[in-house]
Amino acid sequence: MKESWSSLDTFEPNFRPLVVIELAKNTKEETREWLTSRIMDKKANGGAQLLVKPLVTENGDQNIYLVGASHFRLLLGAEAVGLVKECTDNSMRTFTYSSRKTFKGFADDNHSFLTMAECQYIIKHELENLRAKDEKIIPGYPQAKLYPGKSIVRRLLTNGILVQIFPLHDQEELKKLRHTWYGRVKISYQPLDEIRCYFGETIALYFGFLEYFTFALIPMAVIGIPYYVFAWEDYDKYVMFATFNLLWSTVILEVWKRLCAVMTYRWGTLLMKRQFEEPRPGFHGVLGVNPVTGREEPVYSSIRRQLRIYLVSLPFVCLCLYFSLYVMMIYFDLEQWALDYHKENESNFSSLMLFVPSIIYAIVIEIMNRIYRYAAEFLTSWENHRLESSYQNHLILKVLVFNFLNCFASLFYIAFVLFDMKLLRQSLATLLITSQILNQFAEAFLPYWLQKRHKKRMKKKMYSQKTDMDLSLVEQVNLEKEMGTYFGTFDDYLELFLQFGYVSLFSCVYPLAAVFAVLNNITEIYSDALKMCRVYKRPFAEPTANIGVWQLAFETMSVISVVTNCILIGMSPQVNALFPDSKMDLILTVAFVEHMLLAMKFVMAFVIPDKPRDIQIKLARLEFESLEALKQQ
Amino acid sequence: MKESWSSLDTFEPNFRPLVVIELAKNTKEETREWLTSRIMDKKANGGAQLLVKPLVTENGDQNIYLVGASHFRLLLGAEAVGLVKECTDNSMRTFTYSSRKTFKGFADDNHSFLTMAECQYIIKHELENLRAKDEKIIPGYPQAKLYPGKSIVRRLLTNGILVQIFPLHDQEELKKLRHTWYGRVKISYQPLDEIRCYFGETIALYFGFLEYFTFALIPMAVIGIPYYVFAWEDYDKYVMFATFNLLWSTVILEVWKRLCAVMTYRWGTLLMKRQFEEPRPGFHGVLGVNPVTGREEPVYSSIRRQLRIYLVSLPFVCLCLYFSLYVMMIYFDLEQWALDYHKENESNFSSLMLFVPSIIYAIVIEIMNRIYRYAAEFLTSWENHRLESSYQNHLILKVLVFNFLNCFASLFYIAFVLFDMKLLRQSLATLLITSQILNQFAEAFLPYWLQKRHKKRMKKKMYSQKTDMDLSLVEQVNLEKEMGTYFGTFDDYLELFLQFGYVSLFSCVYPLAAVFAVLNNITEIYSDALKMCRVYKRPFAEPTANIGVWQLAFETMSVISVVTNCILIGMSPQVNALFPDSKMDLILTVAFVEHMLLAMKFVMAFVIPDKPRDIQIKLARLEFESLEALKQQ
Repeated sequence: MKESWSSLDTFEPNFRPLVVIELAKNTKEETREWLTSRIMDKKANGGAQLLVKPLVTENGDQNIYLVGASHFRLLLGAEAVGLVKECTDNSMRTFTYSSRKTFKGFADDNHSFLTMAECQYIIKHELENLRAKDEKIIPGYPQAKLYPGKSIVRRLLTNGILVQIFPLHDQEELKKLRHTWYGRVKISYQPLDEIRCYFGETIALYFGFLEYFTFALIPMAVIGIPYYVFAWEDYDKYVMFATFNLLWSTVILEVWKRLCAVMTYRWGTLLMKRQFEEPRPGFHGVLGVNPVTGREEPVYSSIRRQLRIYLVSLPFVCLCLYFSLYVMMIYFDLEQWALDYHKENESNFSSLMLFVPSIIYAIVIEIMNRIYRYAAEFLTSWENHRLESSYQNHLILKVLVFNFLNCFASLFYIAFVLFDMKLLRQSLATLLITSQILNQFAEAFLPYWLQKRHKKRMKKKMYSQKTDMDLSLVEQVNLEKEMGTYFGTFDDYLELFLQFGYVSLFSCVYPLAAVFAVLNNITEIYSDALKMCRVYKRPFAEPTANIGVWQLAFETMSVISVVTNCILIGMSPQVNALFPDSKMDLILTVAFVEHMLLAMKFVMAFVIPDKPRDIQIKLARLEFESLEALKQQ
Repeated sequence: MKESWSSLDTFEPNFRPLVVIELAKNTKEETREWLTSRIMDKKANGGAQLLVKPLVTENGDQNIYLVGASHFRLLLGAEAVGLVKECTDNSMRTFTYSSRKTFKGFADDNHSFLTMAECQYIIKHELENLRAKDEKIIPGYPQAKLYPGKSIVRRLLTNGILVQIFPLHDQEELKKLRHTWYGRVKISYQPLDEIRCYFGETIALYFGFLEYFTFALIPMAVIGIPYYVFAWEDYDKYVMFATFNLLWSTVILEVWKRLCAVMTYRWGTLLMKRQFEEPRPGFHGVLGVNPVTGREEPVYSSIRRQLRIYLVSLPFVCLCLYFSLYVMMIYFDLEQWALDYHKENESNFSSLMLFVPSIIYAIVIEIMNRIYRYAAEFLTSWENHRLESSYQNHLILKVLVFNFLNCFASLFYIAFVLFDMKLLRQSLATLLITSQILNQFAEAFLPYWLQKRHKKRMKKKMYSQKTDMDLSLVEQVNLEKEMGTYFGTFDDYLELFLQFGYVSLFSCVYPLAAVFAVLNNITEIYSDALKMCRVYKRPFAEPTANIGVWQLAFETMSVISVVTNCILIGMSPQVNALFPDSKMDLILTVAFVEHMLLAMKFVMAFVIPDKPRDIQIKLARLEFESLEALKQQ
């Protein structure tokens, strides 16, 4: 039943470009030839068996190649990456070429069985798995060493010969997607399935989470509004609001896991087997033997990495944290100065001036966050992690700790050292709103404007020349290769994470925070959609089954918020008035309630199943079937 | 390469009895014949293809059958249950008959390749998987309904036709094991690998945990002794002791996970695939379709089960908890009475009398725990859980909550309501020591004595008769079938769990608790070993990769002990003296320290990897190999 790789010809007359490879301008002829021949070579000879076409650019340079593949080649690739698709009996199964007829929508001439994003993911996978055979160096570059089994593309990338690989946009599909996503001004859910088809699961899951999170904030916002409107200050109402918030935040995080399982089951990624992780492109070391694969590859001593982490990175992070606290103290000086100024010359201008320090501080925080981000990336890259996942974990830990302290330290200081609830409320509001405005501006509108300007200039240039190739394709590639690269969902999740902090940590002091968060997130959906569709190069689809470490980060934040809210309620004058005789009883009561709430949180997280019952049954059925199949063997 | 089940004859001339089946005395001839023929029938005909021999007992009744299997049949069975064994290249792999030559110690004539416990486990698995084909009832018992796919043995068990199935002891091996385990009076580790070979992984893991836990308690015991000897009461020393205890208990639980992974990797169970879970024998319901397997089998509505749980079980448990608290209040009355008595007539007798209420209470607690245990088993069984694992979880939850409250409520009351540290220390000591003595007595020595008496009587009876079969085998079967049944490690773990509570919850009040725990555990190892080897029937081996829900239970206890110890230290007069002016500062400090300790615990649990590096690499290698094998396919 199984077709062999090389017995069938994978050439196809109608070449459809899927992925663009851009080489450095001065790449040697010999290298180009070697690379294209390796990509086109048959699988049996160690090639990738893909189709490649050079694209002649305006100035005659031949440093751009278009990569495609025949329909049959893509189906074999889908089997290699372990794609999970829906069968005709509505169950989700791992695709294999031999069982292709059992899949929904499959026909030998139906080229839309695999979405374009899936095809591009397959090509990326095949290109990355194109490995050196007996080459010791990259032809033409004696200093770029190779060894058997080393990924050629990764070596070319680290040596700068390969500038970038990116998937092409599908103008028609993109237009349709734009229209359903944000083209119509009407209230509706996002077309998550279409987003997933076009951009892949990681990005669709981010937009799903953003939407879900916005909906989840609405009850908090609705309940929060009367507190502001009627200026409620009764302790029982605050206690109720805070308690609701705490339980609500636990529930929404647990329910998200279930929704996420439903979505990723439908998309097939819940069942997708994890691929074996290769070393990340930037990893370097001396040649040794990998204890897992038994292959020769660079190894880097774990002790040296630990030394770099604990002797350089850790002190650096501590220094940054110290610096952040130092800046915070300057902010408080400024705040004091503004207050003094306001007292001396009481005027409209001076009362506006009261907000200036907070705004400046919010801007400084944003700038520091961004600078620190680069430093953290540089350091983590210098730590030389072997796996991308380990690199990501170290980077996320560094960034989260710093951002958390940088954003919230001043609020903690105001709340628990200065005990100034009025300043806390004002500071919280200014920080939240300023950071939201800055983010929206820096993230989407500025790049969009730059991109638009660039596009105009490019178009002018194009029309002035005359090329004999399909103009629209050359134009498209040239436009897209200059677009910015989307570096993943990290920054977007981080923004939501900090927003969740602003909303939940001090929720009982400023119930209106949720309202601003909801308003921000609605525009955020549009600006992020715009960013994905208009500003950035199309990113490669990344299959994923959940939002990974962010689930843990959000859950940790919600645990911390239990503590802060309990303390805030304990400090409120209304609650204090209940215990006129003994502060001790007050503190003991607050501590007791806090422990009960924490215990309740853990019990709830334990009791609510992570997957809905029907998904559990479907998964159990698949497991049962595979066990039965093994027995039959 | 693959041998088919029925093409090869699995008959073997030298029959070695492995498992005993005891039928009810009055079982009909027709039923016996049907059952034995089904067990012996070829796999292709839906039989189990095992060997069966009747055993004629002293009074001529033929209700005992010995089950064995040929060497070849057992190897095929090992493949069916997914046994993992060591290969010649020291890696652990799932055994398959076709790859048998690559396994360490395999030879076609080496019948000790599979241990006797493994053979018995395989036979049990095959018997339990012997399923009805077209029988609608059990022949001879029209009321005992069957349906295609129903396990015959489970139906026979629930109908009382099958009294019991148990594996035979191997007298020779047992003698050897007894000698190395507890025969010699010398300090050494337990022979865990031999225990595992004889009793299986679950029991070996229990003894491994018991030994590990005892060693882990030694530092606490050693540090605790000077506190008692020199009557140290300085706050700093207590704080140090408690802090050490808290961090230590986190570390030992994390390290245990690693040790456990090392052991179960060596035993092959870490890699063993989970079998698909069948309904438990006692489960009943109306015939319906299982959504997972698509087979017809009894189904029981989840809503009715929930109703039983929440409307009957939950109120019953609450009632029991209330009753336990009521008994506790009686104990305090008794305590007060003993105190009054001691005050009135001060004498040696009256000061002895002071301990009497605690001792009585400890005995009452033990009795209540045991009665409640039966009630909980009855209720959980009545709740009609479909799976054994769900039954176990509900039972464990019920028992743990009650035992926790029953054992520790009085201590909590004394500590945090009466604030009587002297009484707490006395009560803790009496409860701990009395319960340990009672447990050792009720668990091992009493059954051992009963068993010995019974054995003597049986022997006398046997020698007075004359049978023509191998006397020693008949004797052995008759002796063993009357022995008690070991119901699993639940009670043993529960005892350790409560002991851990006594040691850790109030450790800073009574540092000597760890000493008593260590002493108890050393004798516990011996008495448990005696119990396993001499008192009970041999249990079937149960493969397992960890101690399951007990890990969570112990971890929860260590979290609770952080809270209790922090409060106790906060209450101590020495610490109070540090904050002469403000009780508030004291409480805030204690609460802060507690939160830091809890945070540190979670970070430690997160940072310490669950598996040692070399096991991680070995597992990764296996995963890599299976991915590579899939690619080659």
